[in-house]
Amino acid sequence: MTIYKLHLQVLCHHCDATGIVHFPRYSEMAMHVVESWFDEALDWSFARMIGGESASVPVVRCDAEYPRASRLGDHLVWRLSVQRIGRSAIDLDLAATCGGEARVKMALTLVLSDLDVIRPRHWPEGVRARMADYLSGAFQG
Amino acid sequence: MTIYKLHLQVLCHHCDATGIVHFPRYSEMAMHVVESWFDEALDWSFARMIGGESASVPVVRCDAEYPRASRLGDHLVWRLSVQRIGRSAIDLDLAATCGGEARVKMALTLVLSDLDVIRPRHWPEGVRARMADYLSGAFQG
Amino acid sequence: MTIYKLHLQVLCHHCDATGIVHFPRYSEMAMHVVESWFDEALDWSFARMIGGESASVPVVRCDAEYPRASRLGDHLVWRLSVQRIGRSAIDLDLAATCGGEARVKMALTLVLSDLDVIRPRHWPEGVRARMADYLSGAFQG
Amino acid sequence: MTIYKLHLQVLCHHCDATGIVHFPRYSEMAMHVVESWFDEALDWSFARMIGGESASVPVVRCDAEYPRASRLGDHLVWRLSVQRIGRSAIDLDLAATCGGEARVKMALTLVLSDLDVIRPRHWPEGVRARMADYLSGAFQG
Repeated sequence: MTIYKLHLQVLCHHCDATGIVHFPRYSEMAMHVVESWFDEALDWSFARMIGGESASVPVVRCDAEYPRASRLGDHLVWRLSVQRIGRSAIDLDLAATCGGEARVKMALTLVLSDLDVIRPRHWPEGVRARMADYLSGAFQG
Repeated sequence: MTIYKLHLQVLCHHCDATGIVHFPRYSEMAMHVVESWFDEALDWSFARMIGGESASVPVVRCDAEYPRASRLGDHLVWRLSVQRIGRSAIDLDLAATCGGEARVKMALTLVLSDLDVIRPRHWPEGVRARMADYLSGAFQG
Repeated sequence: MTIYKLHLQVLCHHCDATGIVHFPRYSEMAMHVVESWFDEALDWSFARMIGGESASVPVVRCDAEYPRASRLGDHLVWRLSVQRIGRSAIDLDLAATCGGEARVKMALTLVLSDLDVIRPRHWPEGVRARMADYLSGAFQG
Repeated sequence: MTIYKLHLQVLCHHCDATGIVHFPRYSEMAMHVVESWFDEALDWSFARMIGGESASVPVVRCDAEYPRASRLGDHLVWRLSVQRIGRSAIDLDLAATCGGEARVKMALTLVLSDLDVIRPRHWPEGVRARMADYLSGAFQG
């Protein structure tokens, strides 16, 4: 099992008037991680998927916990692994830590869809095979 | 039981390169609803809470589903009710619909905290009483 | 001469780690004002322009001053007027005040373009006529 | 004269419903560049400036041109140089290109200020000296 990692630093604009990271920014960061993973690990960049093949991967579920606050300058290590691969859907586990302390735990479900009508498509075989390298769980639906 | 409502239209910047609302924007909208609810329904604006009393309400959990995509110009009706009120925490149910169609279902847990050290505080009695008007569930911890 | 107005309150997510409005959020607010103006005053919503007519109005210039900082809870009054209408371009003046104090002064140039190739189009006659109601300056190119 | 460079890729959330980069995202990127420059080149991270020394550098002016649109996946090379260093203010020139094509030209003025009252402070001598390495223009006020 492989885990995909991305380092992201907390910038000024990630924080809100309370001085800590505004929680919607974590979702933005998570999508940054997902987007980089598609590009670097699955060899299927969003630019190619969206622009070239008129497909996209809208998020249909996001369950997240934020056990500790993050502040300006914190170095977050994001980790991504795959929980389950369906024919059109994928369940991802993401987590961000700072110095070993858990900051975010997030479970995302994405569904491969036509760009215009939001109708599910099946994963291309090559993409699906590369996804499997990141499987942390047991079964594959 | 009272339900708090807020109408928000999908603007150009809520959508991403796929043409539909980028899901982190829903979290931003949800916080807009929460912030307006604190101001209008609980009579405790974030400006007063944060600026005047050095407290804030960080989100520690967010479970969300996005059953249908939203597009530019869609009129979203957001509804907020209270699931459970603890001594320092509150569980909120939020939902956004467009023309009766469910677009977002979101369960948020917020914890009242000191602004600087993220240490829980108890809800002020008056705020807690007003929160109770929006209780949809059964018990109050 | 008519001036278009929109009231926007400073929310928690508009502010950054310094406690004041992050200046890119003013550009987001300005586009909110422009978008509402197209919808309400010009009767040409972005949804119709983009979705129905495959056109858009990308910003090609933005000159802005931020003489005073804005903080959480501030009520901003945005004003929009037209400086000059070209065949495909329009120069807009925007300003935001809070209690009479200037917070933002912004000059924007937008160009009506085909959505896919970013090639200028001429303003539809009806839209151009309605734009002229908001002209503050002298000439019309 | 030294030029500070930062590579940033256009992600899905930088684009809006028109499929190109939403222009306020360029301001966010520009602040990312400025923030990294303070950290890496001036050895004065925003975390230290804001958290440790209760100072910040609000933007008081931003003049920008966007000659060409950027799209999902574009690799932007941002360049930063210094136009003028005042006692409390600094004028920066930023530019983003993609494959040699100009996408953004931006002139920013930042003022070093107390965090709470927005009162100008003088640049620390060491910071000012390091800033001078990036001077592109002639004089130093």
